[in-house]
Amino acid sequence: MNIGPYSVEDYMHLVKSFHGNIAPGIIIGGFMVDLAVKSLPEGILFDAVCETSACLPDAVQLLTPCTIGNGCLKVVEFGRYALCLYDKYQGHGIRVLVDTEKLEQWPEIKTWFLKLKPIKEQDSKILRDGIINAGLDILSIQYVKVKNMLIGKTGNGAIALCPECNEAYPIKDGHVCLSCQGNNPYYRDSQAQNDMPSLNIFTIVKS
Amino acid sequence: MNIGPYSVEDYMHLVKSFHGNIAPGIIIGGFMVDLAVKSLPEGILFDAVCETSACLPDAVQLLTPCTIGNGCLKVVEFGRYALCLYDKYQGHGIRVLVDTEKLEQWPEIKTWFLKLKPIKEQDSKILRDGIINAGLDILSIQYVKVKNMLIGKTGNGAIALCPECNEAYPIKDGHVCLSCQGNNPYYRDSQAQNDMPSLNIFTIVKS
Repeated sequence: MNIGPYSVEDYMHLVKSFHGNIAPGIIIGGFMVDLAVKSLPEGILFDAVCETSACLPDAVQLLTPCTIGNGCLKVVEFGRYALCLYDKYQGHGIRVLVDTEKLEQWPEIKTWFLKLKPIKEQDSKILRDGIINAGLDILSIQYVKVKNMLIGKTGNGAIALCPECNEAYPIKDGHVCLSCQGNNPYYRDSQAQNDMPSLNIFTIVKS
Repeated sequence: MNIGPYSVEDYMHLVKSFHGNIAPGIIIGGFMVDLAVKSLPEGILFDAVCETSACLPDAVQLLTPCTIGNGCLKVVEFGRYALCLYDKYQGHGIRVLVDTEKLEQWPEIKTWFLKLKPIKEQDSKILRDGIINAGLDILSIQYVKVKNMLIGKTGNGAIALCPECNEAYPIKDGHVCLSCQGNNPYYRDSQAQNDMPSLNIFTIVKS
């Protein structure tokens, strides 16, 4: 059984190097992406949406041309382990999900997927082998058309300098950038540098 | 000059294979990530936040262990071309930004970055060479501490089956999943399959 152009073993090596660990979800994710790709008409230009940020986006990024940074992969945080690959222009697509009814045949996977036991009480080897043996058997597909909000790229439009932070930002966001509108995720003060005593100052760009 | 462990040329090959095209932003992004990594104390475990989803997240994913799917890379949509790598537990970090004052020395980059001319009127080769020559010279860093919302992983908690779609979802989201709460990004109907006349039905998992 293959996952995309890879043997399962090669896919797991790839996952290890990109994702950092061979989590159960990303193995299932490999089968999900593979199924979606093979179910689309050949040669179609597709975008992708993942319904969770957990693991699944990395399977998409490893097995398709869609990445977060190139705008072809979007993530909507529904906490559902499902993804959809869809015609970039028309929106017709294939949604693949883990089918909880089908999990009845795979009790170890069901226990892990629905968090029926603490992860420490589960046997990771049995779980991984089960996922590989199950392959496509725990998945279902749906034919969907994505809504317009997922079709096409929405550029940022014209750029201005934010009068508060002096950084470039999209004018469409308002008179100041979104960060300066109260969303700044950082504290910034002169003490911060002292909090990093081993900071390698030789690499700092001179102001 | 190198970008992470790569020569600029090797980095661009890597970008081409992952991101799909060697966009100006992802070359700058390579220098930004490289600067941030080298400015952090050695051996620190760090997470990353990008302030735009355009290009920059892919530079982070190519040059650090942080990916969208492993939870170590977050994206906040401020439309600012900036990123921060920060201590995963304490939150102290290095923010790297494209410094618009420094762009005065690099008119081609300034024109592109601030969208002063339509992209078609810009010379992509001159722009790319300028970006490579500029390297770190157009960047600045700030010492920051990220706010608590960016520190640690917030698990989804317990799982239930959504009474509407029958799919697994995090109970914390409410009585039905977020998609069924009116956010469903898909149309789903029996016509959809007919819209894909060349669908390879042999790969479909039987229900």
